[in-house]
Amino acid sequence: MSLDGAYDDGNIFARLIRGEIPSVRLFENDAVLAFMDAFPQSPGHCLVVSKTSRARNILEIEPEALTAIMLGVRRLARGVRTALQPDGIVVTQFNGAPAGQTVFHLHVHVIPRYEGREMAGHGRAGQADAGELRALAERIRAALD
Amino acid sequence: MSLDGAYDDGNIFARLIRGEIPSVRLFENDAVLAFMDAFPQSPGHCLVVSKTSRARNILEIEPEALTAIMLGVRRLARGVRTALQPDGIVVTQFNGAPAGQTVFHLHVHVIPRYEGREMAGHGRAGQADAGELRALAERIRAALD
Repeated sequence: MSLDGAYDDGNIFARLIRGEIPSVRLFENDAVLAFMDAFPQSPGHCLVVSKTSRARNILEIEPEALTAIMLGVRRLARGVRTALQPDGIVVTQFNGAPAGQTVFHLHVHVIPRYEGREMAGHGRAGQADAGELRALAERIRAALD
Repeated sequence: MSLDGAYDDGNIFARLIRGEIPSVRLFENDAVLAFMDAFPQSPGHCLVVSKTSRARNILEIEPEALTAIMLGVRRLARGVRTALQPDGIVVTQFNGAPAGQTVFHLHVHVIPRYEGREMAGHGRAGQADAGELRALAERIRAALD
């Protein structure tokens, strides 16, 4: 899907927000939800989405929704840093399929990087073990401000 | 440099903000500066930095500074879309050398993607032709909200 088009209420993040499909949640408020990426590029890979916006991408997002997402990203990055002590953190957000976007509900990736360990390619990572995701999430949640 | 350490006033973006080294500027206000990346991963690659914060990364950035940066990113992405009509846009932000960070003043990349054209690796792109950068910048500036 290109940068043009309409929001699809059936996208997996919309369904996840509505609780129609399971997720390992990290925190949420009225504006945003943070959860573990089920196909992590690196251990501790997590995501932040708006719960209120129907923006597919950065071109469409309302300023208030973007602000809420990014404050969530900052909070999450700090929690990940404390919990998992990665050597670096990649924050990334893809717009349009040619840029690597696969779910058309705006989302921001927070990806811990570990020295000497390669990150799996976006869209090429395998599904995480559910128990391992839950264990990582517990550590991250415990470290959130 | 890892995620720990102190801000270095001599980093190239600090110098660029102070006007000590040249840049092809796109827009600025009291809070942020947007300019062309001199080593573009793709034609139209540009950056947004805070002019007020001494944060090296997402862990350190003040919420108000982050908000200003991201509103700048949104404005820039919309201008790039209108001006250059890319098929996608990557927004990315690296924290710590193991995550790919090379300049330790927080910055957000806005990278246009074009169908069928690979993006150069971060830190592996050559320096852009100055005339070409200025021409792209003129088109982006003309398209800003």
